[in-house]
Amino acid sequence: MTRATRITLEGPFLLYLGDKRNPLDVKTSRGLALFRPHDCLGELRQDTCPLTLGLPRMSVEQAAAAGAKALVLGVATSGGRLEDAMIPEALAALEAGLDIVSGLHQRLDADPRLRERAAALGRKLIDVRAAPADLKVGTGAPRAGRRLLTVGTDCAVGKMFTSLHLVAGMRERGLEARFRATGQTGLLIAGEGIVVDSVIADFISGAAEALSPAREDAGWDVIEGQGSLFNPSFAGVSLGLLHGAQPDALVLCHDPSRPHMRGLPHMPVPDIAACLEENLRCARLTSPSVEAVGISINGSALDPDQAAALRGQIEADLGLPCIDPAVTGVDPIVERIAARFA
Amino acid sequence: MTRATRITLEGPFLLYLGDKRNPLDVKTSRGLALFRPHDCLGELRQDTCPLTLGLPRMSVEQAAAAGAKALVLGVATSGGRLEDAMIPEALAALEAGLDIVSGLHQRLDADPRLRERAAALGRKLIDVRAAPADLKVGTGAPRAGRRLLTVGTDCAVGKMFTSLHLVAGMRERGLEARFRATGQTGLLIAGEGIVVDSVIADFISGAAEALSPAREDAGWDVIEGQGSLFNPSFAGVSLGLLHGAQPDALVLCHDPSRPHMRGLPHMPVPDIAACLEENLRCARLTSPSVEAVGISINGSALDPDQAAALRGQIEADLGLPCIDPAVTGVDPIVERIAARFA
Repeated sequence: MTRATRITLEGPFLLYLGDKRNPLDVKTSRGLALFRPHDCLGELRQDTCPLTLGLPRMSVEQAAAAGAKALVLGVATSGGRLEDAMIPEALAALEAGLDIVSGLHQRLDADPRLRERAAALGRKLIDVRAAPADLKVGTGAPRAGRRLLTVGTDCAVGKMFTSLHLVAGMRERGLEARFRATGQTGLLIAGEGIVVDSVIADFISGAAEALSPAREDAGWDVIEGQGSLFNPSFAGVSLGLLHGAQPDALVLCHDPSRPHMRGLPHMPVPDIAACLEENLRCARLTSPSVEAVGISINGSALDPDQAAALRGQIEADLGLPCIDPAVTGVDPIVERIAARFA
Repeated sequence: MTRATRITLEGPFLLYLGDKRNPLDVKTSRGLALFRPHDCLGELRQDTCPLTLGLPRMSVEQAAAAGAKALVLGVATSGGRLEDAMIPEALAALEAGLDIVSGLHQRLDADPRLRERAAALGRKLIDVRAAPADLKVGTGAPRAGRRLLTVGTDCAVGKMFTSLHLVAGMRERGLEARFRATGQTGLLIAGEGIVVDSVIADFISGAAEALSPAREDAGWDVIEGQGSLFNPSFAGVSLGLLHGAQPDALVLCHDPSRPHMRGLPHMPVPDIAACLEENLRCARLTSPSVEAVGISINGSALDPDQAAALRGQIEADLGLPCIDPAVTGVDPIVERIAARFA
């Protein structure tokens, strides 16, 4: 049977920010800093980079001297390609004694300079997007277990963040819960998973089925969602994941400050209620009794009063708990899960 | 800019049937026999294979002696893998002087025996599923041109067959029309295309956009659909293709003899009207004025009177032309296209 990709990542890490200017472009580095803080020594960034993770700024040599084991290229690039600017820094990291970890589509060993230096120096090039070789097409056949999937009005709206907080909150409440990573950041945090947007298209739902196999206990698999049914770049991944996850419960994630779909000025952000309804309709193909258990907002760009008012409005409109994990915690959704799936 | 995969396939071919028993499993070999008949010399099948394409049964040596240039492994296997039984036959074909052409997921050169013998003998191993290396994520940005996409209640219900007949019918009617292949059989017939279920999941809609670039003339791209929004194995591919194709017109394909979704006894075949409506709703994300122009039935398993009655019933129910390309031709749909998009 297919298993999730398992990677063993020895920290501590130096986190790459490069010259990125959009916080969403350093999502992977930031995720590691947030959810594996004890493993993050410093950040590597250009003078022109206005972003910081709150970690000491370090060169690769300084990081190696401080004990770092790997440079994590935790940034998003166009098409997931290695950018030219990354190569000299990655080569310097190899020279300094660090392994390289990447969540990009393009494999590290596809660059001959990196491949040759890593081989000569005995360093590892670790691609977390590499998919398991033995994936199968999904079947949609009913399987045992309780699964929650986070879905979104767009990509990069807090699905991983919400999933990780939900797992912690469910465990505090005494529920058995396990995080199932489907993206490169989640996989780096959890140490295992399958990066579903990197599998061959035929195997999207099969990857989701392999990732969250049948379980007979009363515990939950909390599966990190990807993309959005309303984002035309990635909706195929979202639909395959929705069918393969076979969720009992959905949590819809939303960023109210997004002016349009990410990177697509011509695409409006969908209405929350319509987006939730579309996800429920599509999910019913493999999970007829699926239900929504809450909404998760990233209100960090709003005034706190505005954000609270928005949450209240959403709760009134949809009759579901609306949280902002960083502000309210996740208890209202955990309580609803406990009540609905006793 | 990304281009479709171009392959030059020199015929004539020997078509592999192996020991397959289900006609759907030899779809690629049959498609070539049907749409490139002048390039198909014979068929290679086991004694236990009850299927035939109506071609002379030949060994690889006989085919080579008769002038064949390549053995086409035009069968479907579980997970798209090379089956053990294929290896000795492929090796014999190489020895006899033939190249090997495959539409399987598993690359031919991933098998060391094939790789080594082909290299030693100077023969080609041609994988039509190999995706272009420079695909980008789709954007859904509006682009010029008229596009028709065939969609289906399930996979393997006649989308390629209908598309090819529509192109021929549109050309007869004086419309400019071009077939855009998205599957291995279509690509083998057309000589170019992108096998969209083989691309990395992030690039499904981008592949569809690359496959059917903006065109400024009044001509049509007729894009071969894949899978079904209601087939949980492949719906992600279908949705990404629908968004990337940005179709002006949809034709829904259906096999009324299908007892359940292919290979999924637990999944019912969707209602035609509901399936069409779901495809239209999803397509509107990138093509707001999309419309349905007809239904295409494969009635070959029905009694002819029954099939005619079914077509009449569908026409009455949906107010759209319902054809069976092999029986009625495609003119009713071509007429509707000409009338609606004057």
